Amino acid sequence: MVEAAHFARTFHKPKQTMNSVSVFAPASVANVAVGFDILGFALDRPGDEIVARFSDKPGLRITRITGDGGKLSMDTQKNTASFSAYKLLEHLGENEWGIDMEIHKKMPFGSGLGSSAASAVGGVMAVNELLGGRLSKREILHFAVLGEQLADGAYHADNVAPSLFGGIVLIRSNRDLDVHNIPVPDGLYASVLYPEVEVLTRDARAILKKEVPLSATIEQCGNLAGFMVGLYNSDFGLLSRSLHDVIIEPQRAQLIPHFYATKAAALNAGALGCSISGAGPSIFALSSSRAIAENVGIAMEKIYLEENINCQLFVSPINQQGAIRL
Amino acid sequence: MVEAAHFARTFHKPKQTMNSVSVFAPASVANVAVGFDILGFALDRPGDEIVARFSDKPGLRITRITGDGGKLSMDTQKNTASFSAYKLLEHLGENEWGIDMEIHKKMPFGSGLGSSAASAVGGVMAVNELLGGRLSKREILHFAVLGEQLADGAYHADNVAPSLFGGIVLIRSNRDLDVHNIPVPDGLYASVLYPEVEVLTRDARAILKKEVPLSATIEQCGNLAGFMVGLYNSDFGLLSRSLHDVIIEPQRAQLIPHFYATKAAALNAGALGCSISGAGPSIFALSSSRAIAENVGIAMEKIYLEENINCQLFVSPINQQGAIRL
Repeated sequence: MVEAAHFARTFHKPKQTMNSVSVFAPASVANVAVGFDILGFALDRPGDEIVARFSDKPGLRITRITGDGGKLSMDTQKNTASFSAYKLLEHLGENEWGIDMEIHKKMPFGSGLGSSAASAVGGVMAVNELLGGRLSKREILHFAVLGEQLADGAYHADNVAPSLFGGIVLIRSNRDLDVHNIPVPDGLYASVLYPEVEVLTRDARAILKKEVPLSATIEQCGNLAGFMVGLYNSDFGLLSRSLHDVIIEPQRAQLIPHFYATKAAALNAGALGCSISGAGPSIFALSSSRAIAENVGIAMEKIYLEENINCQLFVSPINQQGAIRL
Repeated sequence: MVEAAHFARTFHKPKQTMNSVSVFAPASVANVAVGFDILGFALDRPGDEIVARFSDKPGLRITRITGDGGKLSMDTQKNTASFSAYKLLEHLGENEWGIDMEIHKKMPFGSGLGSSAASAVGGVMAVNELLGGRLSKREILHFAVLGEQLADGAYHADNVAPSLFGGIVLIRSNRDLDVHNIPVPDGLYASVLYPEVEVLTRDARAILKKEVPLSATIEQCGNLAGFMVGLYNSDFGLLSRSLHDVIIEPQRAQLIPHFYATKAAALNAGALGCSISGAGPSIFALSSSRAIAENVGIAMEKIYLEENINCQLFVSPINQQGAIRL
């Protein structure tokens, strides 16, 4: 019976369908200093590669994972990449396809760079493309967020949406997935440093006070709105004046050794602003040109190298494409 | 000596200087639901008219006030309109001019429509224009805010900047007067209802809790950023989804009788959103056309008329000019 069902599905397979699809889903920086839980942007690299291919054996399976040091589950229901794809297949009523998935982790875990979001995006997009691109990116967003939720416990799109769509993304409401791309000024570059120290997302969230002073809320709102105007108007001066997180960064900085020294180094090297990427420990800076961003990255890296802490540096424009077929 | 000094000044009087200048400075709506202390917009009407004219008697004097029911001070140092002008003259080193000022209040006090801000703007602009427009609007902003501070106790520009510049204005930082005009979508209209009940600004501020739940801060930030994107993209749907104040309105609504009934009436009549104007008691709604805004205004007004509470209704596009010479 299973074979027959599979045969019936294959009969309706759309003409443009390939036998194998590879997708790259990029890393992302969430929060962006002034948009806790509501802003994120994508990087050109690093990112994950997910391969999906038809198989004669019905059902979705993970056949291979590389780059994870053996840490990720091969169980379809417990792995972010396969879970988002599974939820898509379930929605489409296409669970009976035989699909093998390979997951190539090409970015660090627990780094604050949206590793689980990239896998969730890559998984759902690879399977959607394998089926002929049945749904739009906007339509698969929900399934990618379900994959992220499996890893993080929360239904939030501040890494998923940038990884999927690219650019700088506002998530007005995570509940409603009311997401909007904001213009990216020419020349805007990110320097992202991942110091190899462990910060657990749940610790980073638990440490936050449940209440915020009204005065800090007003100041943060002013900076958030200033950041938006700066992006629309390509006003680097305004972006720089706006990139100050007075709510979250002061609470989380203590979790990241040498954070303030690194931030000072970035600003001294000409960065527009510098803060924590997602829940950390990665630290991002924004700059108005590639040359400045490279100098800023080197200045940030130097702090950790002098302390004999391993780190990885990524200098990247804002990725405008998001997840792509390779 | 004084006469001689005056003569010397007169000798340098710029050629374009008139003997008398009249300025109209419009009312404004501060906070705009999602931008407490940082957003405001200007109305076409009501507003104040300020007249400044040269006099042979040295010094700045208020010679006439109308429309205030005798409530405003004629003392130059205690009246918002003359104080802002005085501060400008002091800055320019031009205190010795003989200038008479007339203040024609054409809008209600204590209404939450920026009455003191309009007077402060009108006063400083009238005198600046009388002296030949020595400074730009951007340069006289500070002096207008000093006038507002005399009335309100706080150095804030969320009514002053819209009244002076027109449009929808972001004040990223009141301390730095980092102000920015945001694009106004075609068709955006305001319906503003002033119910003649008293709300003291200091009560409206004292009632506010000093702490805000982090979850409410995140929601408000999402709505603020959504409102900005909606304005830049003329996306009325997004404006409507964004126009929800989850921080201030729930605390202040109790000060305004029938607020929630009025808000419901506005939304039922098709408004994009509805909230408290400034510290109240005025209530504003935004709509996507004049016709809707007129219906919304009538629906709001009906609530108070049925309760036998006097009210004044203003339906206006967003005023794009701000204060003007008449």
